[in-house]
Amino acid sequence: MGKKRTTKYKKHIGQVPGAIIYTGEKTAQKLFIESFDYTETTINEQELTNIEDVFSYKSTESTTWININGLNYIDEIEKIGNHYDLHPLILEDIVNTSQRPKIDEYEDYIFIILKMLYYDKDENIVSEQVSLVLGDNYVLTFQESEGDVFDTVRDRLRQAKGRIRNLGSDYLLYALIDAVVDHYYIVNETMGNKVEDLEDMLFEGVIKENLNKQVLDLKKELLKVRRVIFPLREIISRVEKSDHKLIKKKTIQFYRDIYDHIIQLSDTIDIYREMIFSLMDMYMTSISNKMNEVMKVLTIMATIFIPLTFIAGIYGMNFDHMPELHYQYSYYILWAVMIAVFLGMLYYFKRKKWL
Amino acid sequence: MGKKRTTKYKKHIGQVPGAIIYTGEKTAQKLFIESFDYTETTINEQELTNIEDVFSYKSTESTTWININGLNYIDEIEKIGNHYDLHPLILEDIVNTSQRPKIDEYEDYIFIILKMLYYDKDENIVSEQVSLVLGDNYVLTFQESEGDVFDTVRDRLRQAKGRIRNLGSDYLLYALIDAVVDHYYIVNETMGNKVEDLEDMLFEGVIKENLNKQVLDLKKELLKVRRVIFPLREIISRVEKSDHKLIKKKTIQFYRDIYDHIIQLSDTIDIYREMIFSLMDMYMTSISNKMNEVMKVLTIMATIFIPLTFIAGIYGMNFDHMPELHYQYSYYILWAVMIAVFLGMLYYFKRKKWL
Amino acid sequence: MGKKRTTKYKKHIGQVPGAIIYTGEKTAQKLFIESFDYTETTINEQELTNIEDVFSYKSTESTTWININGLNYIDEIEKIGNHYDLHPLILEDIVNTSQRPKIDEYEDYIFIILKMLYYDKDENIVSEQVSLVLGDNYVLTFQESEGDVFDTVRDRLRQAKGRIRNLGSDYLLYALIDAVVDHYYIVNETMGNKVEDLEDMLFEGVIKENLNKQVLDLKKELLKVRRVIFPLREIISRVEKSDHKLIKKKTIQFYRDIYDHIIQLSDTIDIYREMIFSLMDMYMTSISNKMNEVMKVLTIMATIFIPLTFIAGIYGMNFDHMPELHYQYSYYILWAVMIAVFLGMLYYFKRKKWL
Amino acid sequence: MGKKRTTKYKKHIGQVPGAIIYTGEKTAQKLFIESFDYTETTINEQELTNIEDVFSYKSTESTTWININGLNYIDEIEKIGNHYDLHPLILEDIVNTSQRPKIDEYEDYIFIILKMLYYDKDENIVSEQVSLVLGDNYVLTFQESEGDVFDTVRDRLRQAKGRIRNLGSDYLLYALIDAVVDHYYIVNETMGNKVEDLEDMLFEGVIKENLNKQVLDLKKELLKVRRVIFPLREIISRVEKSDHKLIKKKTIQFYRDIYDHIIQLSDTIDIYREMIFSLMDMYMTSISNKMNEVMKVLTIMATIFIPLTFIAGIYGMNFDHMPELHYQYSYYILWAVMIAVFLGMLYYFKRKKWL
Amino acid sequence: MGKKRTTKYKKHIGQVPGAIIYTGEKTAQKLFIESFDYTETTINEQELTNIEDVFSYKSTESTTWININGLNYIDEIEKIGNHYDLHPLILEDIVNTSQRPKIDEYEDYIFIILKMLYYDKDENIVSEQVSLVLGDNYVLTFQESEGDVFDTVRDRLRQAKGRIRNLGSDYLLYALIDAVVDHYYIVNETMGNKVEDLEDMLFEGVIKENLNKQVLDLKKELLKVRRVIFPLREIISRVEKSDHKLIKKKTIQFYRDIYDHIIQLSDTIDIYREMIFSLMDMYMTSISNKMNEVMKVLTIMATIFIPLTFIAGIYGMNFDHMPELHYQYSYYILWAVMIAVFLGMLYYFKRKKWL
Ligand SMILES: [Mg+2]
Ligand SMILES: [Mg+2]
Ligand SMILES: [Mg+2]
Ligand SMILES: [Mg+2]
Ligand SMILES: [Mg+2]
Ligand SMILES: [Mg+2]
Ligand SMILES: [Mg+2]
Ligand SMILES: [Mg+2]
Ligand SMILES: [Mg+2]
Ligand SMILES: [Mg+2]
Ligand SMILES: [Mg+2]
Ligand SMILES: [Mg+2]
Ligand SMILES: [Mg+2]
Ligand SMILES: [Mg+2]
Ligand SMILES: [Mg+2]
Ligand SMILES: [Mg+2]
Ligand SMILES: [Mg+2]
Ligand SMILES: [Mg+2]
Ligand SMILES: [Mg+2]
Ligand SMILES: [Mg+2]
Ligand SMILES: [Mg+2]
Ligand SMILES: [Mg+2]
Ligand SMILES: [Mg+2]
Ligand SMILES: [Mg+2]
Ligand SMILES: [Mg+2]
Ligand SMILES: [Mg+2]
Ligand SMILES: [Mg+2]
Ligand SMILES: [Mg+2]
Ligand SMILES: [Mg+2]
Ligand SMILES: [Mg+2]
Ligand SMILES: [Mg+2]
Repeated sequence: MGKKRTTKYKKHIGQVPGAIIYTGEKTAQKLFIESFDYTETTINEQELTNIEDVFSYKSTESTTWININGLNYIDEIEKIGNHYDLHPLILEDIVNTSQRPKIDEYEDYIFIILKMLYYDKDENIVSEQVSLVLGDNYVLTFQESEGDVFDTVRDRLRQAKGRIRNLGSDYLLYALIDAVVDHYYIVNETMGNKVEDLEDMLFEGVIKENLNKQVLDLKKELLKVRRVIFPLREIISRVEKSDHKLIKKKTIQFYRDIYDHIIQLSDTIDIYREMIFSLMDMYMTSISNKMNEVMKVLTIMATIFIPLTFIAGIYGMNFDHMPELHYQYSYYILWAVMIAVFLGMLYYFKRKKWL
Repeated sequence: MGKKRTTKYKKHIGQVPGAIIYTGEKTAQKLFIESFDYTETTINEQELTNIEDVFSYKSTESTTWININGLNYIDEIEKIGNHYDLHPLILEDIVNTSQRPKIDEYEDYIFIILKMLYYDKDENIVSEQVSLVLGDNYVLTFQESEGDVFDTVRDRLRQAKGRIRNLGSDYLLYALIDAVVDHYYIVNETMGNKVEDLEDMLFEGVIKENLNKQVLDLKKELLKVRRVIFPLREIISRVEKSDHKLIKKKTIQFYRDIYDHIIQLSDTIDIYREMIFSLMDMYMTSISNKMNEVMKVLTIMATIFIPLTFIAGIYGMNFDHMPELHYQYSYYILWAVMIAVFLGMLYYFKRKKWL
Repeated sequence: MGKKRTTKYKKHIGQVPGAIIYTGEKTAQKLFIESFDYTETTINEQELTNIEDVFSYKSTESTTWININGLNYIDEIEKIGNHYDLHPLILEDIVNTSQRPKIDEYEDYIFIILKMLYYDKDENIVSEQVSLVLGDNYVLTFQESEGDVFDTVRDRLRQAKGRIRNLGSDYLLYALIDAVVDHYYIVNETMGNKVEDLEDMLFEGVIKENLNKQVLDLKKELLKVRRVIFPLREIISRVEKSDHKLIKKKTIQFYRDIYDHIIQLSDTIDIYREMIFSLMDMYMTSISNKMNEVMKVLTIMATIFIPLTFIAGIYGMNFDHMPELHYQYSYYILWAVMIAVFLGMLYYFKRKKWL
Repeated sequence: MGKKRTTKYKKHIGQVPGAIIYTGEKTAQKLFIESFDYTETTINEQELTNIEDVFSYKSTESTTWININGLNYIDEIEKIGNHYDLHPLILEDIVNTSQRPKIDEYEDYIFIILKMLYYDKDENIVSEQVSLVLGDNYVLTFQESEGDVFDTVRDRLRQAKGRIRNLGSDYLLYALIDAVVDHYYIVNETMGNKVEDLEDMLFEGVIKENLNKQVLDLKKELLKVRRVIFPLREIISRVEKSDHKLIKKKTIQFYRDIYDHIIQLSDTIDIYREMIFSLMDMYMTSISNKMNEVMKVLTIMATIFIPLTFIAGIYGMNFDHMPELHYQYSYYILWAVMIAVFLGMLYYFKRKKWL
Repeated sequence: MGKKRTTKYKKHIGQVPGAIIYTGEKTAQKLFIESFDYTETTINEQELTNIEDVFSYKSTESTTWININGLNYIDEIEKIGNHYDLHPLILEDIVNTSQRPKIDEYEDYIFIILKMLYYDKDENIVSEQVSLVLGDNYVLTFQESEGDVFDTVRDRLRQAKGRIRNLGSDYLLYALIDAVVDHYYIVNETMGNKVEDLEDMLFEGVIKENLNKQVLDLKKELLKVRRVIFPLREIISRVEKSDHKLIKKKTIQFYRDIYDHIIQLSDTIDIYREMIFSLMDMYMTSISNKMNEVMKVLTIMATIFIPLTFIAGIYGMNFDHMPELHYQYSYYILWAVMIAVFLGMLYYFKRKKWL
């Protein structure tokens, strides 16, 4: 049964550390690179497929954002790695899409791995890994495939909205992370709605066939999201407290703002978790209560009629000598006895508070 | 089902950091500003709708408390932000009413977000966000709508009760936070009463239809209050340990007093939580016990009468050749047998301790 | 329902910080003050009702213990507060009897709040708050009402037993706290006995009607005691590690001894807690087991006799044409069939291990 | 019920701190003292009953181990306490046999309390307290009664096996603690076997009457052992990290080895604990499953035969006018109907997967 | 029952510390030693059975890896211990195969114990202990028996793949640990598949006989793996933060990469654990639900037919005087009554939502 499952980790075993091996599934992805090179007054946006076209930006004063989509283009990634002098372990992590969110501080750059979260068409949570490298005048971002949460950053760059064009690469990094975190709220809210739906369902007694499946899926979603969001607490807190030359004092307050969001999201996830456990406890209690109800009905009916049926059985016997059968009022006396038994039982159940 | 729920977080996505967007629901709220400007010997109380009227206070020696109600008046809030030189991220937080309680220390001011808690007419807990800015000779407070927990502070200012007029803005901030925390006790006490009511109800066996709903609501209330109160531990402890120039040594002891209250409230909340879990465990045990009782009654009745009814059935058969039917004393012997079976069963159940 | 409960916290709302408001219930208590003034060679014990009588002790070399009973005498407490120069917040805490155990270090004195624990006549745990102020040559203690756990300290002072008269006020404070902690052991032991009684009861199967009530009360007692004892860990550990001028190095080892006791008490409480949970789990399992037993009896009886009764029913029918009824050996054959069915059933249950 | 239990703690209440009161139960124990005085080349072993005989060793260069058995000999213990200048609180702890394992570092000696663990003849875990005092050229050990886990240390001393005679008193202390910890492994292993026995028993379905008692006893044993072993983690770690003059750098590696053992033992205890909880969960699930099975049998039988019996009952009625009774083939048609009902029921249960 | 279990720990009791006693079971293992001696440009691979053959490598500049298989060859291990000047406690740990993973830093070498994990042919997890000693120009590895996870390291050494031949012994140690950790992923993945299989099984309702056994085994596997992997977090983190002269700054980033993997593995294990608990909760709920279903069927059938059967019983009685028996339409009226009762019941159950 378990045999048919994937074994993707095996690919990596025995590899030279720093070996750049793409572990994702989007191997047919086309390489797509876009770049934004800007100063306070100018901006130059390009789409390209040849990575060398943007290499010249490194030596200019302007700030550059290079966004690379397509982690299966190992060669291109190695080229950019060499140009920006990235450690081989970083390149390995970039193309390994099952990384845990993390931060690594090197002397000349800071390397961050995050997960972008969103619901796909079938309402399943998808997480796409995005790797960010912050240098003194550039930010590199690496994604598996086109389509991301950065459109609002692009717009602000183009329209010079807010302070994004005035501040340097550390502010750009902040803006990108902020965009990622903003999208966590949508996922969070959707999960909150699911918890509330579950609650409504349980209270309305509309138990669907697949309740257990639904609860389990929700728990798994929570675990998945928790795993994406919780490491960010430490990541952002490390940026905040870091005295890395690349993070200017002025920008730190913005990272603190992200930190607030992460804490709030974490709190909410824990609350959803507790809610689900409480709901399931409640569901279990209500099942037991219902069973108790069912048993009472059965017991009352059986307890009342079983002795009555026995009495009727007695006088259905065919013995030759059964004197009661021949008395004039036997039948009516029997009815009286039966009604007395019936009322006695009712009284008994009343006293037991079963009725 | 989940589609009709709110999606308020979406408003924020892609906004410029520091964008001032009111996320609350009281958009029809009228702007209402009050100010208290006082020294040890003088006090000047004003109600106004134009924020500029109080701007002159900033440069005088006197201490000023400006209380702004109406977070939908973005422009006014920006004006005051500019006048007091507040960081854009602070303004963003002030009007975002779903903030987690927190403290941010800036060079010239300290920014604190709290939640005021109270029960509304329908006995639901309401929490209203209040943002406090402490400057060297002023405290600013921002609320969504009129009505708050600060009346006792107002009275003490007017009547120069206690030391409030002698000490500076840091003591005023303390007095405001203390008023917020004092109200937590009422909420806490009401929840305590609810837990005790639940306990009484379970012991008296008066199980209302909606017991589960009630327990769940109580748990949710506890989670909500916990979420409001617990972050305060760190906030107050940061004020206490801070060596910010705005917090004078003399005032710190007062903050320590608030800290005591918060710890006590936190303890109590955790105890309520444990109590509820214990009560529900107990309830579950008692359901199982009752079901056991029901089953015993059924089993005793059925076990006694089922074999007796079978015997009666035997002699109700219409075979031509059933010798027992024709003996003189068959019927009486049968009764003896039945009574023996009956007594044997009783003895058996007695020995099993079911009776 | 919850309306009739007390709302004592409301008294405090909006009060000036440091306002001295007695929150206890013993408002009819008479004021009673006792003092011990001693040196290595002399001792002077007094009972008095006028606090000023002991004020002169403050300026002498001797060590003084002043024990004030009656927290409703606000004026007297304020007088002593002024004389010993106590912070208003301390006075507020002294008369507020719902404080959490705590320590506050001031420059000239150390303020500690503890709870004395004992069982009253009805075997309910009572906790009485005692506030202790340690000065350079005095210890003040404040209690709600007469009667406490300090008699052994009084005796040792009078009889100059041990080192109590040779060492200063910090050793006296230790002796008083030690007396409080010693009494925790009695309470602890009583709770341990209750847990063992519960265990015995569950194993002997003597389930009293009010088992659930009893377990819940025990859990509540544990929570209460835990809340009194656990904060002491931090309090004593702060005294030990403190370098306050009032705590001499020589005395610290004695505080470490108290710390040992507190840790041991805490451990024991946690073990009782675990024991109760294990006992209740065990109880639940045994209920389920019993129910299973009951169901088996019912099922065996019903399963055996229901088909037999059906067969008897068949031949009790009154159809004109039922050939079996008229054969010579039908009745005997029927009995053979019934006995075969009966034995088959027995074998089936045997194989299922129900018998 | 709880009245008959012991109240040993009451003995201590109100005692002068440092009062030496034996709290154990072996008051009839004979005093027995043994001493080992050794250098690298010489060894002098004595058994004695007069403590003064070994006092001279204190001033010689040789290392001395004095092992005192019999904590009810208060006077002797005080004598040795005076000779070795031990703090009164240490003497109090030595004779109080309900201490928690702990370490106290004094300037001239280190005081450690441990519990020796072993199973008695009835397979109950016994723990005997052993107090160890490490001085510059001596180790004192105090036990309640003869018989301990130190025989292997004695042998190594006599035979000068390993490095025990070359290294000083700190290595001797290590050797003694190591002997204590070695015996924990036996207890641990026995408990592990009990857990495995429980597992086997549950899987083989051999549920003994006293299963619950057995599980509870095992849980209590685990709690007891945990309480003995867990404090050792901190004790040994404090020795390791201590820079006390008595612990030489060379010996520290040996203490680290003990630390490894303690961690391993702690891990194992926690795993046993988890195993027991998992086993009991599993047991509960299997009870529920069995009950389900029982109910299905009952329900199938009852559901099939109850309507059939009803039909038979109908045609057992004695109405004068029941046309069906007189038709030629009624009886056969009835059988056909009954068989159809029977088969229909079977099909229904099949579809429900109950069969 | 428990008597037949192993008691391997007893072997060690009372042994001299540092006594080298093999505790494993592979006593028939042949000694097998292999060595790799390499510089950037040369490599010399040997297989040998005499340990002295590699002793000369110690004094050359080249880096040497000596891999010793066969822990029962105590003498050989002592020889190598003496040659490399290893502490006796290290040798003791090497041959004691029930060590917990750990790190010990000595002045001239670092000693690490790990567990290699793999599934054997019967799909049981096997863990083999491997001890690693890092010196300035050598790494020693000790295993119980031939066969390990290091083949990829051997290949890279032979083919000078990656940077392994250029960097020193600390990088070789990294490569070996990395190989161990890489294999954890396979075990982890297999366990993940088992959890998913369990989930599928529970949802498809295919409950095998041995479900409980399977779940318990899975839980035990998780505990086992957890115990192997979790200590590595601290071990690697200590290497990373250590400033031991043997760990060069350049290599530390590689250890950080291992740390990432360990954290990810730990996370996954905890998630599997939670999943299993959720699945078992769900299973319990579904059992209860099914039992409820069963009870309803029984109750409906019994409740409908029991009174009807009683009525039939009444008119099966043989009293001489039962007027109803003789009316013309009694039988039809009775049917009408019965159908009415039947329909009434159906309506009742419909309203109760049991149908
Ligand atoms: Mg790697
Ligand atoms: Mg991740
Ligand atoms: Mg913010
Ligand atoms: Mg926020
Ligand atoms: Mg929380
Ligand atoms: Mg919960
Ligand atoms: Mg639960
Ligand atoms: Mg923001
Ligand atoms: Mg909040
Ligand atoms: Mg206070
Ligand atoms: Mg307080
Ligand atoms: Mg707790
Ligand atoms: Mg609970
Ligand atoms: Mg206060
Ligand atoms: Mg308290
Ligand atoms: Mg002590
Ligand atoms: Mg202790
Ligand atoms: Mg614990
Ligand atoms: Mg439990
Ligand atoms: Mg003591
Ligand atoms: Mg102990
Ligand atoms: Mg070792
Ligand atoms: Mg070990
Ligand atoms: Mg755990
Ligand atoms: Mg469990
Ligand atoms: Mg050892
Ligand atoms: Mg381990
Ligand atoms: Mg990596
Ligand atoms: Mg990772
Ligand atoms: Mg977790
Ligand atoms: Mg769970």
